[in-house]
Amino acid sequence: MAEFSPGRITPIILAGGSGTRLWPMSRSSRPKQFLPLMGAHSLFQVTLLRLAGDPRYGAPIVVTNSDYRFLVAEQAQDVGVAPDAIILEPVARNTAPAIAAAVAVVARGDAGRIVHVLPSDHLITVDDKYRAALDAAETAALAGALVTFGITPTEPATGFGYIEAGSENAAGGHKINRFVEKPDAERAAEMIAAGHYFWNSGMFVFAAQTLLDEAQALAPEILDAAQKAVAAAQTDLDFLRLDPDAFAAAPDISIDYAIFEKTTCGVVVPAAIAWSDLGSWDAVWKAGDHDSAGNVAQGPVTLRNVTSSLAVSEKLHVVIEGLSDIAVLASEDAVFVGRLSDAQAVGAVVRDLKADPTTSPLTETHLTSYRPWGGYASIHNGERFQVKRLFVKPGKRLSLQKHFHRAEHWVVVRGTAEVQLGDDVRILRENESIYIPQGARHRLSNPGKIELELIEVQTGSYLGEDDIIRFADEFGRS
Amino acid sequence: MAEFSPGRITPIILAGGSGTRLWPMSRSSRPKQFLPLMGAHSLFQVTLLRLAGDPRYGAPIVVTNSDYRFLVAEQAQDVGVAPDAIILEPVARNTAPAIAAAVAVVARGDAGRIVHVLPSDHLITVDDKYRAALDAAETAALAGALVTFGITPTEPATGFGYIEAGSENAAGGHKINRFVEKPDAERAAEMIAAGHYFWNSGMFVFAAQTLLDEAQALAPEILDAAQKAVAAAQTDLDFLRLDPDAFAAAPDISIDYAIFEKTTCGVVVPAAIAWSDLGSWDAVWKAGDHDSAGNVAQGPVTLRNVTSSLAVSEKLHVVIEGLSDIAVLASEDAVFVGRLSDAQAVGAVVRDLKADPTTSPLTETHLTSYRPWGGYASIHNGERFQVKRLFVKPGKRLSLQKHFHRAEHWVVVRGTAEVQLGDDVRILRENESIYIPQGARHRLSNPGKIELELIEVQTGSYLGEDDIIRFADEFGRS
Repeated sequence: MAEFSPGRITPIILAGGSGTRLWPMSRSSRPKQFLPLMGAHSLFQVTLLRLAGDPRYGAPIVVTNSDYRFLVAEQAQDVGVAPDAIILEPVARNTAPAIAAAVAVVARGDAGRIVHVLPSDHLITVDDKYRAALDAAETAALAGALVTFGITPTEPATGFGYIEAGSENAAGGHKINRFVEKPDAERAAEMIAAGHYFWNSGMFVFAAQTLLDEAQALAPEILDAAQKAVAAAQTDLDFLRLDPDAFAAAPDISIDYAIFEKTTCGVVVPAAIAWSDLGSWDAVWKAGDHDSAGNVAQGPVTLRNVTSSLAVSEKLHVVIEGLSDIAVLASEDAVFVGRLSDAQAVGAVVRDLKADPTTSPLTETHLTSYRPWGGYASIHNGERFQVKRLFVKPGKRLSLQKHFHRAEHWVVVRGTAEVQLGDDVRILRENESIYIPQGARHRLSNPGKIELELIEVQTGSYLGEDDIIRFADEFGRS
Repeated sequence: MAEFSPGRITPIILAGGSGTRLWPMSRSSRPKQFLPLMGAHSLFQVTLLRLAGDPRYGAPIVVTNSDYRFLVAEQAQDVGVAPDAIILEPVARNTAPAIAAAVAVVARGDAGRIVHVLPSDHLITVDDKYRAALDAAETAALAGALVTFGITPTEPATGFGYIEAGSENAAGGHKINRFVEKPDAERAAEMIAAGHYFWNSGMFVFAAQTLLDEAQALAPEILDAAQKAVAAAQTDLDFLRLDPDAFAAAPDISIDYAIFEKTTCGVVVPAAIAWSDLGSWDAVWKAGDHDSAGNVAQGPVTLRNVTSSLAVSEKLHVVIEGLSDIAVLASEDAVFVGRLSDAQAVGAVVRDLKADPTTSPLTETHLTSYRPWGGYASIHNGERFQVKRLFVKPGKRLSLQKHFHRAEHWVVVRGTAEVQLGDDVRILRENESIYIPQGARHRLSNPGKIELELIEVQTGSYLGEDDIIRFADEFGRS
């Protein structure tokens, strides 16, 4: 990272989570933050656009894991955002090491720089209260505080952690007494009644150097691991790949416990803002547009005599009749039906599905997979054949490859393809086709200006994605 | 029909119903009787096999409507049953005209012959009680009675019509007092308490001549229409197509009201047998195999903390969590979720869906369509292309055809295809492909001994099924 983009605050977006509590939509290969849950853009893109609309921010730094690197790069590109860096965590170590590494990257450029650490998948309404809270946080951070935002609770929610605020300081912030894990209903009600507890938003504002100093004092092993991982990091295409051995040495701990609960310069800024972590389907329902019967419906859905329910469907037509407090979530290949008020149970459901080898793929992959060049959707699985729809972005090129066990028929249905087969290169237009024999070296490119779409019929005795030998690749995968 | 097959009773199977109360599985193009609801065979096939297993029966006569003729012929052939006749109703006129026409066909061969009229989609357990009831019915029919079966009720069901039985005759049958429409719960309980009410099974046994005589006396306009429709019927391939004008003149009325309620030779034979009309999803649940929590599950289904529920899925993985008395029915393109105990509501749901042009196709067709030569499944719909999987039975041939607006790419993925393109005929084997240009005459055959399966990619500006000019066809469709 040569220098910072304009804007005085650097956002650090945490986009490495692999939660599956919004199953069947969220899966480990494409978790919640990368899904278009609340409109045309993914939550990650909504986050990028929210930051891009505020001149106080420079370009973001995104921290994610290696599996999501192309999703991050493409989704950012799609909304016209160029991150200052995309940092790849080699292993998951909770928020403290991830944030320490990102801050270490920032500090290489300007140790005094203010950063705003935030999750990639929360919904926030930008209004005067939000802007006022940010102003307060920035002021406190410039004065040397480690600031966290505490969302003013609107109900005794049991799905969030809480922050107990202590005495108030001059700028309207409060001392942080402690972090409280997700409470039961009784404890949540007590905290609401007490009035000095706030929802833990997972958003922080501080100067890079302040965090480094406090980490040095309170969690030196984290700082050491993070700094070594950054020092030995590899640049890989557009990504900064943290050193695996160094980063793996960091303890697995949240920044709340590692730093914020112990520091003497911690401040919680109360913020009475519209916020949701969309952490479960009932949170999605709360954040959605309700009809007069209190239902939220997305996609092809018909509701008859239904109240206080959530129905989301990607493709199938969902019909619900005569029920209340129901959640029906239909992806292309799975449907979840349960009580909306018990939507937290999806977590246990996914654990069960994961434990069974016949169902675990349903928690991992979608029928549509995204690749740096575009992607493919499985549209039919036969006995010794399968049919996929491939889509290739303008100007992109797949690897030069061959398969031992399958032949492929390609029919171009949209756009223009350039196909290398052996040493021969030819152009295929819409409605033209080509046959790729088993064992033949081949390479597919989209030389055009619009997306290339083709139907691929694979035939052979083994059709796994791992039957691929890559001879050359533009995305570091050969 | 030249002569009767061995067996002294001719079954007349009514297979023309187009009910959609088992939506989303049952649709008007492929209703309940043709679906494999309770195992590998459709209900119609289960009915055929039940009759074929009893030497008292000859080959059946099937009455259906024109749209279902190939389904009837193929499903019968699949289980090795050759009907004596497949009679096609040109319009739906309820049971009295349909039965009168079928009986008129039987009477042309032998007016004294005993027939057993039965629905194609009911579930019956063949046991000693069932056989005894049939024996009693046959004896009474030979003595000149019009016999109906009354199922001994096991609960005050509101989903069936009832028959009020009168005085008992020597053979254990009863006079028929009257037919009662589906009652409310209170009235049903009263009838159960009274003890002389039976469920109306829709099954009848009588000699052909007895029915003709009684129809002549009690409903002459029905008999006249039926006899004229048979006299002017056209033989079309394996089908007997009733004359449309003659048949349309018959009143729309059930045989219960037209004949049985009025005749003096009516007899109801009580039968304490295991029977279900599978008329709604709760009936399917009752007839299914229950787990220890009272659930019935078919297909890829996961139940967690679920009781007294029904889950049926054709393809998608259905997960239900923490609910009771729930019905989740998932076809390839639609999901119904409602109370199992309120499963009758599916009828109203389907009416609503039918009334909306955007959803009415969901009540009419399935993603997979059956044709006399095999069929096709829609596997992907794109903007100016679509992908289908075609399956062609051994020895079958599609029509010689052309399309004005689409080109087709075919990839053979199983079996062997013979393709006529223009004047050229060639053989395609597994993993070979061919391109059918827009406007080109072509014809696909399966010359092999195993099913032919191919993937068809259609491209063009209009992709409707009606863009087809047929030059020659083996199934009377050109």
